[in-house]
Amino acid sequence: MKRLYYIFLSSILVLSVSCKNETSKEIISEDTPAKFIDQSDIERIEPPNWWTGFKNEQLQLLVHHDNIGDYKPTVNYKGVKIDNVSKAEKSNNYLFINLIISETAQAGQFNIKFKNNEGNELIDVYELKSRVKPAEDFIGFNSSDAIYLITPDRFANANTNNDTPLSMEGQSALLEKTIDRKNNYARHGGDIEGISNHLDYIQDIGFTAIWPQPLLTNDMEKGSYHGYAITDLYQIDPRFGTLEDYQELSQNAKEKGMKLIMDQVANHCGLNHWWMKDLPFTDWVNLQDNYEKNIENWNNDVTINSNHRRTSNQDIYASQFDKDGHSQGWFVASMPDLNQRNPFMANYIIQNSIWWIETVQLNGIRQDTYPYPDKDFMSDWAGAIMTEYPNFNIVGEEWSYNPLLIGYWQDGANNKDGYDSNLKSTMDFAMQANVVNALNEEESWDTGLVKIYEGLANDFHYANPKSIMVFEGNHDMSRIFTQLKGDVVNTKMAVATYAMMPRILQMYYGTEILMNDFDKPGDHGLIRTDYPGGWQDDSKNAFTGKGLSAEEKNMQTFVSKLLNYRKNSKAIHDGKTVHFAPFQGTYFLFRQLGDETVVLILNKNDKPITIDLKRYTEIGIDGKSLKNIITGDSFTWQDNIELTRRGFLLLTTKTE
Amino acid sequence: MKRLYYIFLSSILVLSVSCKNETSKEIISEDTPAKFIDQSDIERIEPPNWWTGFKNEQLQLLVHHDNIGDYKPTVNYKGVKIDNVSKAEKSNNYLFINLIISETAQAGQFNIKFKNNEGNELIDVYELKSRVKPAEDFIGFNSSDAIYLITPDRFANANTNNDTPLSMEGQSALLEKTIDRKNNYARHGGDIEGISNHLDYIQDIGFTAIWPQPLLTNDMEKGSYHGYAITDLYQIDPRFGTLEDYQELSQNAKEKGMKLIMDQVANHCGLNHWWMKDLPFTDWVNLQDNYEKNIENWNNDVTINSNHRRTSNQDIYASQFDKDGHSQGWFVASMPDLNQRNPFMANYIIQNSIWWIETVQLNGIRQDTYPYPDKDFMSDWAGAIMTEYPNFNIVGEEWSYNPLLIGYWQDGANNKDGYDSNLKSTMDFAMQANVVNALNEEESWDTGLVKIYEGLANDFHYANPKSIMVFEGNHDMSRIFTQLKGDVVNTKMAVATYAMMPRILQMYYGTEILMNDFDKPGDHGLIRTDYPGGWQDDSKNAFTGKGLSAEEKNMQTFVSKLLNYRKNSKAIHDGKTVHFAPFQGTYFLFRQLGDETVVLILNKNDKPITIDLKRYTEIGIDGKSLKNIITGDSFTWQDNIELTRRGFLLLTTKTE
Repeated sequence: MKRLYYIFLSSILVLSVSCKNETSKEIISEDTPAKFIDQSDIERIEPPNWWTGFKNEQLQLLVHHDNIGDYKPTVNYKGVKIDNVSKAEKSNNYLFINLIISETAQAGQFNIKFKNNEGNELIDVYELKSRVKPAEDFIGFNSSDAIYLITPDRFANANTNNDTPLSMEGQSALLEKTIDRKNNYARHGGDIEGISNHLDYIQDIGFTAIWPQPLLTNDMEKGSYHGYAITDLYQIDPRFGTLEDYQELSQNAKEKGMKLIMDQVANHCGLNHWWMKDLPFTDWVNLQDNYEKNIENWNNDVTINSNHRRTSNQDIYASQFDKDGHSQGWFVASMPDLNQRNPFMANYIIQNSIWWIETVQLNGIRQDTYPYPDKDFMSDWAGAIMTEYPNFNIVGEEWSYNPLLIGYWQDGANNKDGYDSNLKSTMDFAMQANVVNALNEEESWDTGLVKIYEGLANDFHYANPKSIMVFEGNHDMSRIFTQLKGDVVNTKMAVATYAMMPRILQMYYGTEILMNDFDKPGDHGLIRTDYPGGWQDDSKNAFTGKGLSAEEKNMQTFVSKLLNYRKNSKAIHDGKTVHFAPFQGTYFLFRQLGDETVVLILNKNDKPITIDLKRYTEIGIDGKSLKNIITGDSFTWQDNIELTRRGFLLLTTKTE
Repeated sequence: MKRLYYIFLSSILVLSVSCKNETSKEIISEDTPAKFIDQSDIERIEPPNWWTGFKNEQLQLLVHHDNIGDYKPTVNYKGVKIDNVSKAEKSNNYLFINLIISETAQAGQFNIKFKNNEGNELIDVYELKSRVKPAEDFIGFNSSDAIYLITPDRFANANTNNDTPLSMEGQSALLEKTIDRKNNYARHGGDIEGISNHLDYIQDIGFTAIWPQPLLTNDMEKGSYHGYAITDLYQIDPRFGTLEDYQELSQNAKEKGMKLIMDQVANHCGLNHWWMKDLPFTDWVNLQDNYEKNIENWNNDVTINSNHRRTSNQDIYASQFDKDGHSQGWFVASMPDLNQRNPFMANYIIQNSIWWIETVQLNGIRQDTYPYPDKDFMSDWAGAIMTEYPNFNIVGEEWSYNPLLIGYWQDGANNKDGYDSNLKSTMDFAMQANVVNALNEEESWDTGLVKIYEGLANDFHYANPKSIMVFEGNHDMSRIFTQLKGDVVNTKMAVATYAMMPRILQMYYGTEILMNDFDKPGDHGLIRTDYPGGWQDDSKNAFTGKGLSAEEKNMQTFVSKLLNYRKNSKAIHDGKTVHFAPFQGTYFLFRQLGDETVVLILNKNDKPITIDLKRYTEIGIDGKSLKNIITGDSFTWQDNIELTRRGFLLLTTKTE
């Protein structure tokens, strides 16, 4: 693979030097970096560049080239030295070079020279960049944020040129090269530019951050649109655009004060990942033996899959058989399970994450299938990132309804086994379900609204509840509108409830216009339906409102009012939480900070009901004038409140 | 009330001394305790006696007598002094005397003299006893125990003389004075002697401990049989027998190597408790105002009841309104909620517990409705007991399916709010339900046997899983045979599973003969059905086997084999636990210590299935000969195992 480097002109000086190598190239002496280099003798070096000024001075370069194992690398650059070099035990086409980049190293380019015993020399020009802002300024997402989760292939197709991309040089075939919007499991053409173009819309709705699902190349036979089968960990999928598009998205977001979260996958890669054709070690991926024995007849029936027993991470009684079966088994047969216990793999993944943070100036990472990789590695991984970026944030995906597991993965959990994940945020699948159940169930002693009340009561267990991410839905579950059986009132109640919680808030694109999967509930392709207006020929356009039903428009307005209030509400971000046990089909939740009190009242009664407000006297708002955040109406908190119909009230003491 | 003291002849010397008081009595000088005293001028002093040699030298005497508030008490006994005396703010008929009983105090009797300003003198003879064994020898129940829970009124009626007792002198009316076996909510006549008489049977079945529900006087209008509405905390209900019967039961159990657990209630008393007619303080019981205002028209509709929101104990967001509503509300309107925040009440309850431990030589306490009393008091209460009896055990009843709450109450939980209950054992309602659901549900990814697997996986969270008590049923829930829809195979599977867990095991009387509540599932009176053979005219007798069906007999034999193996199985008591995720409708659980490995296999397949034993190689029993604990059959653990029918296998490597 040839790589293209754009170097800041202001800081460099160019020299042309000829060398023995057949290919003509620019070679740089110790103090004289090149202006423009587009050639290297080496097929692949990863990471493709690095930076000066990290706390961790170590850098592992993965070098992939024909018989590179026969070569000895040297470096001559001030502040940079080779600490050690390792061959790969299984393939002679790899070298792993550990560099030490000391504090004194300056940004610039330098040659890495490779010589073999036969006197052949190969040269790669490697670059150390300057970091563009202090590490402390990478501010992670937090409870002040409302995050818009996007399936990039399905959101907006801005650049139709990349709908049918050519194969990228040095890459495999890009097997799914055409879009087919009639097939829910094919590519539909959405891209990074599509997200960029609609940041205004996303911000208007009230979101403060975006989390696009993985944007890296998924050169897979089918189902590549979802992005979780990455075949090149340093490359943007050409159907989504370019690295520059991604950087531009980040820049655009930053200019609007919005945050960008990257979806990363440490557990697995796609079966067509380039290294699967030339595995460096016998333990580069888990159960590699089994894979190699069956490679000719590989399919989903191969018994290599994970047992998915995620509890084996915590279970003090779990058999080794189950622990291995979980952690070493493949998520699915099309996704090789990376062996993070191989130290070269471990370094590779950590550096890859840092490379993306620095290259795209990320605000956070969402880590896929969090409980599947080696858990000690995951702690090291998050620890390495948080050490470099103390104000960054990472959220791990553990699909569990068990608060014990949700809590286990959060930094500061004080687990009995001593495990510390270094992970600030986990996902609250339990609360997602609690709210849905609260609304779907009939009210009784232990059903209905009590599910929210008792769900929140579990917060006493968490190290840091407000750093947990709650959400109304995501790409793997039925749309919230579907989960709530098409009941708009309940859908609004649910969204208002999630938004009011002491949590980071995430919502899935389209919830604001009641997107649903009624036709085939739970169908992944259908859940990830194209966002209306994202394609030029769409007759319905949610960005402009054209063709939206009154109900959809109303929902969009509601979400916008809700999130735009939340955006500036210190009480919701950081305030005290007080709630009252369900009472006569109602539930009252208060958030308070300073002068601001926000009140959420959920009411499941179809008939009017009057509630005596004396119950809530301890909140200290008796006699105060409140404003309805959605309607703008005024209300005086005195004596009692009449709730005329099923639904919610969202009130604030901030009336100006 | 007149009290009767039996004094050990060997340690005392009797002197008769006349005094000014009208009533003739034996009065004792400082060094000369009385042999036999049956009179006191004082209506009631509690505790009725105490002991020398406690770590806590303080003793609070509650004195109840007409206008005793006008009197000043004095004591003249070596090593004993009055620290302070408090009147009760609401009633002049109380004095609370705090004694200091120093290390130098000898067992014996002494006078407490009360004088008022008018020169009147009243005398009570108080006794300090010697403790009969070291505090360390009070050995609590633990994971080696299988506890038989008994509803005393419904187990065996040995003494028909106490079926229709006279009112006890100084007590209220004993409103339910006759038995009516046709009414499931009336008294049926079971008594302490009935339990004593059948200890052999209980031990033969394999139980090592008994837990009779409360035996103290419940002089209530109705429903008094269950025992949880205590009207005198220092008196055995005359319909159950006498204090001597209780002491004899303890002694009989001890001689058989069995343990005795007392069911205590710190949260509430019965509405007819003697002090409810003359409350000492305005805050002796919670919501006392409300009670006193409504006393004339008292009924279950009075809105004094607890909101039963037990999560408010932990919930960091709970309103004070809900916290108070839970903790101060009455469990039911017939059970006044004791205010343990009143320090006199707090002392009273702690001393009452210690009095019973010492008087009956208990091995443990089961504390009713554990999350309802003031939780700081409950920690003090358990702490005070465990300080005096370091090897004792207490189990608290929290009816919760949430491991967070089950774990919260256990000593060593390391709760984030700093709360330490001092309670070694809690109850595992979650696991009770998990096993039932595991067997009732169809097998799927997240239903069926996985409920046991994931339930046990939660043990990582507990401070000490094997000190938690698991049970197949109790007096408040449908019989396990009913919960399992009358499926005998499932009932055996369930019982075997509970018995194999790293837990203290408890079973409800009658499970061993498939007692059920099919006719009216969940009906308390029916759940607590009379044990067949406990009444002389019973045609069916489970003690002898007469009239039992083949199925019932078979169950009885099964439970006996199971528990008699468990009794001596160090692997089950203290061994390592290893289990395997459900596989093809089976679940394998192993317990191991030293040479002993016990294997439980649950199999839900109706058709024969063969399981490759290679999965379990890490257990280290390949090639070993095992014995079926129930059938005695031999089995070699090699290659594979054929499971021919739905059910369980319980195998052990202990074949001799």
